[in-house]
Amino acid sequence: MDMAEPRLVHRRALTIEWGDCDPAGIVFYPRYFAMFDASTAALFQAALGMPKIAWTARFGILGIPMVDTRAKFHVPAVYGDEVVIESRITAFRRSSFDVTHRLLKADGALGVEGFETRVWTVREAEGGRIRSAPIPEEVLAAFA
Amino acid sequence: MDMAEPRLVHRRALTIEWGDCDPAGIVFYPRYFAMFDASTAALFQAALGMPKIAWTARFGILGIPMVDTRAKFHVPAVYGDEVVIESRITAFRRSSFDVTHRLLKADGALGVEGFETRVWTVREAEGGRIRSAPIPEEVLAAFA
Amino acid sequence: MDMAEPRLVHRRALTIEWGDCDPAGIVFYPRYFAMFDASTAALFQAALGMPKIAWTARFGILGIPMVDTRAKFHVPAVYGDEVVIESRITAFRRSSFDVTHRLLKADGALGVEGFETRVWTVREAEGGRIRSAPIPEEVLAAFA
Amino acid sequence: MDMAEPRLVHRRALTIEWGDCDPAGIVFYPRYFAMFDASTAALFQAALGMPKIAWTARFGILGIPMVDTRAKFHVPAVYGDEVVIESRITAFRRSSFDVTHRLLKADGALGVEGFETRVWTVREAEGGRIRSAPIPEEVLAAFA
Repeated sequence: MDMAEPRLVHRRALTIEWGDCDPAGIVFYPRYFAMFDASTAALFQAALGMPKIAWTARFGILGIPMVDTRAKFHVPAVYGDEVVIESRITAFRRSSFDVTHRLLKADGALGVEGFETRVWTVREAEGGRIRSAPIPEEVLAAFA
Repeated sequence: MDMAEPRLVHRRALTIEWGDCDPAGIVFYPRYFAMFDASTAALFQAALGMPKIAWTARFGILGIPMVDTRAKFHVPAVYGDEVVIESRITAFRRSSFDVTHRLLKADGALGVEGFETRVWTVREAEGGRIRSAPIPEEVLAAFA
Repeated sequence: MDMAEPRLVHRRALTIEWGDCDPAGIVFYPRYFAMFDASTAALFQAALGMPKIAWTARFGILGIPMVDTRAKFHVPAVYGDEVVIESRITAFRRSSFDVTHRLLKADGALGVEGFETRVWTVREAEGGRIRSAPIPEEVLAAFA
Repeated sequence: MDMAEPRLVHRRALTIEWGDCDPAGIVFYPRYFAMFDASTAALFQAALGMPKIAWTARFGILGIPMVDTRAKFHVPAVYGDEVVIESRITAFRRSSFDVTHRLLKADGALGVEGFETRVWTVREAEGGRIRSAPIPEEVLAAFA
């Protein structure tokens, strides 16, 4: 498929809360996946100019469910840390795409990397079966 | 309303997991509310002989949403603790009811008390408005 | 104790994330307690001019553990909602205090009220016993 | 390193709770990582005959922090599902190891696969630096 390279990078700052952390005083790692999920929603909101609840309705999709996700942990974030999550699309395919997240500590150190593969998913009008669908050109253009 | 006193007490054992605990090494208190929510589901399952997803369908209700909940914290539970949660209905009213939970530590000490007021809630056939509905006699009888 | 009335009100805006919500599409209520816990931390940060991890160290305390908390649920917040949490101290006693939170929906409707009683808690130098301690005048003054 | 192949498979049954699920009615995927973390703790408890809090103390380690984790999502688990998580060590190296989890639905379908790489981690007596350490023979033997 011939498509423009996704260039948009979204950054959001957040503070590590007490409730994000475990008895070792560091973020309980499943929480990073929740942070990355919210970052993907924020990335699409930045690209499409409306919140996820609006653009999923607009494009008539069920959502962008995860089929594969991974995280590598380099430097733990601790309670009170001010971190930044940088998120970008690294590949668009016909009906799936990859997102990469980089959680950066206040000193710029790479704390955690996150990788996601998600599918553009619709529910068929007839029968209600859930299946993948081609990502619209308008979406590709919004990230270019 | 004339009704039998609810007598059923449900007990379930659980282990405090690493991910339930905060940097002080004790359960992050919002987690107790999630444990109590699951205990209320287990209490109804014990009374009605089927899981919540089945009895909400059977009685044609939307659910039993919380309107008021409270917890008192006496002795913190820590990572690795084997605890028991005892749950019972303490009052049935026309369309609402109260649940009390007692989280007991392995030595029998009362760790946490939880209190819930929930409403028997339906969606009207016409208009789809959400409203309370009388709790069926069959439900009252199941707890007597 | 003769003390100034606490007047400081802290407001923070947040977006209800997908992961905050349950199959009914509304916030899973234990999540509100986590939001309120972070709001109490933000309230103290606003009053004392430093994050919780710094002021607990400065005053030599273990923390401000919860002994009693309650929430009343008026209007559910749903996925995508932009809400504001207003937080204030409603009472200071010798070594404990009350916090009240009001979660307001975008239209100004009161969604959820939260109530907390917390204790100013230290670890004794000798023996390491955990006990309550008087709240310093400097803290009271910061909220006046 | 010459070592016996790890053979122990640990299975634990759990019920998908309301609070595990998102507005799509399926498990919010970060929750699977928390389930897998508890399964790894249960696997070691089965092998070593004591809870994690005891064996980390016994071997004088800080813990087994995650450095890399991944999950593949095949069939979503929904609220009320009774699932089984099968967990096993798939590789032991000098000071790190891999764990694989398979979440099976009630009909035996593979719902989710989880992969973990963790490090046997100690705090040095002098200086308090955190570093990896060789996994003891006793641990390897317990899984053979």
